Amino acid sequence: MSDVNRRIVLASRPEGEPTPGNFRLETAPVPSIGPGQVLLRTRWLSLDPYMRGRMSAAKSYATPVEVGDVMEGGTVSEVVASENPDFSIGALVLSHSGWQDYAVSDGKGLRRLDPDVAPVSTALGILGMPGMTAYTGLLNIGQPKPGETLVVAAAAGPVGSLVGQIARLKGCHTVGIAGGPEKCRYLREDLGFDATIDHRAPDFAAQLERACPQGIDIYFENVGGAVWDAVFPLLNEFARVPVCGLVAQYNATSLPEGPDRTPQLMRAILTKRLTLRGFIVRDFATQRDEFVRDVGAWLRAGQIRYKEDVTEGLERAPEAFIGMLKGHNFGKTLVRVSS
Amino acid sequence: MSDVNRRIVLASRPEGEPTPGNFRLETAPVPSIGPGQVLLRTRWLSLDPYMRGRMSAAKSYATPVEVGDVMEGGTVSEVVASENPDFSIGALVLSHSGWQDYAVSDGKGLRRLDPDVAPVSTALGILGMPGMTAYTGLLNIGQPKPGETLVVAAAAGPVGSLVGQIARLKGCHTVGIAGGPEKCRYLREDLGFDATIDHRAPDFAAQLERACPQGIDIYFENVGGAVWDAVFPLLNEFARVPVCGLVAQYNATSLPEGPDRTPQLMRAILTKRLTLRGFIVRDFATQRDEFVRDVGAWLRAGQIRYKEDVTEGLERAPEAFIGMLKGHNFGKTLVRVSS
Repeated sequence: MSDVNRRIVLASRPEGEPTPGNFRLETAPVPSIGPGQVLLRTRWLSLDPYMRGRMSAAKSYATPVEVGDVMEGGTVSEVVASENPDFSIGALVLSHSGWQDYAVSDGKGLRRLDPDVAPVSTALGILGMPGMTAYTGLLNIGQPKPGETLVVAAAAGPVGSLVGQIARLKGCHTVGIAGGPEKCRYLREDLGFDATIDHRAPDFAAQLERACPQGIDIYFENVGGAVWDAVFPLLNEFARVPVCGLVAQYNATSLPEGPDRTPQLMRAILTKRLTLRGFIVRDFATQRDEFVRDVGAWLRAGQIRYKEDVTEGLERAPEAFIGMLKGHNFGKTLVRVSS
Repeated sequence: MSDVNRRIVLASRPEGEPTPGNFRLETAPVPSIGPGQVLLRTRWLSLDPYMRGRMSAAKSYATPVEVGDVMEGGTVSEVVASENPDFSIGALVLSHSGWQDYAVSDGKGLRRLDPDVAPVSTALGILGMPGMTAYTGLLNIGQPKPGETLVVAAAAGPVGSLVGQIARLKGCHTVGIAGGPEKCRYLREDLGFDATIDHRAPDFAAQLERACPQGIDIYFENVGGAVWDAVFPLLNEFARVPVCGLVAQYNATSLPEGPDRTPQLMRAILTKRLTLRGFIVRDFATQRDEFVRDVGAWLRAGQIRYKEDVTEGLERAPEAFIGMLKGHNFGKTLVRVSS
């Protein structure tokens, strides 16, 4: 056990893309615990696009991280000291310890993990928040039916890759949008997507149209921006758009130039009878058991797969996070903080 | 029976607001009927905002009226000649005869009306397409719950006035937006809206905010434009927006100036988990029986009321239609074609 607690705090709020200067690595004493508490040592830290929102002061569905505070984040942690009879030393738990080596918890909200059931890092990915985001958003809002066409962007990420695979299991024609030939090949050959498109291709919109000869019935929105612009004219009557993320616009500091296309969107919603609905995973918290049951079974049966993109060392979390927002990750972004 | 069939055809497609010159009154012989057919004489012609869409060549949920063709429209008609045993002379039917004195039908799609149950003109209004639009859109998409705040624009129109009254029966705080003090007073005093706002008031947006101290849970969208702009920042988390019409933008010939606010709308959909969903009444055709049962019962019990705005004479249909698009009507717009 190291004798300091390294932690990464928000040094300043980003304007546009976050830079390394927006973060600061600090050290503090390892905290001590009192009755009922446990000391957690972080093994895995999850990096997720929603954290970009927490860095801004703007109101969203969660309160921002304050400047000077430890960055928020889900973790897989090990109990290294315990004055709580429910948690013995050595236990592995899903926690929300943030970007730091150690955290204190009274045990509330911790979930015990069993390494014999699945690698514990999956509690941050396919069996965790990103997986449940994909599962609940697709099934509740997307409502896939056999023969329909589903398009998902950021398709090689932890949410998108599961969205596409579940849609495939539901009988959809699945089209994934990702950055670069390597990710596209992975989606087709390893995950069974019917078609993939590299959003960096100059004829991206034309390729998307060719990949969707029957139009688009479900567009699982992770990115916004230019991808949305290409998807929008292809949406079929009664198409559903679960709005899960808008990573392409998280760093924007102003609105795009005009004209204002809002009336065009509203007209399409009306005449095509579209459904656009935003959600976050906790809106469907009551569906956790079905999620674990279904995705667990598909995983065990080899019907779905996942990929992790691991960065070694807490000190490298800022660069991994910045890279992820640019699409440099290939799979679920994790930081191995200790082992 | 007059010996000519007057009919109003689309003379040219409007650019922006329709003008009288976009219509032409023609006369033709009264058509003759063959075996299985009936001759229908129009009593009431319904004028509705959707007809503006039919005048344009742009693709929508229905095919446009061709230049030179009779304008489309729902009618209450009388059978004046019959070679169809199912329809005797004198019967009153709901038809889709269009803007003309006479039409021929083989009986398919006609619905018999009983003047003893309700005034037959209501088959074009509160017990017809506009009423069912209000009922199905509000209950299926709006999903009103007691204590929620509902806002509806064009609130004195046939759709909006029923939306507000049903929401009131469901226990909502109901806020109606209408043009002018007379309509606003009617909504409050006769229909029981909790608050009304004149969209012509210079401080319209501030008034709307004051009328919705708990924010807006349901916005029934009939108009778009400046009303939407005022509603948008007041939408609560999980608000539902049934998109029924956009009359404020039907005449627009170009998009508004920038910036492009689409990303702002998408961000709100995500962070507030809004649902925007377009619909037209035929999407809920299977709910006709419930609609007639419920709205019929509320009408008989005096729990809801309606208003008609009658123009005399087919030849005045174009001016009545043009006026309706500007909000000059007060109640359901009808043309009495014959009596």
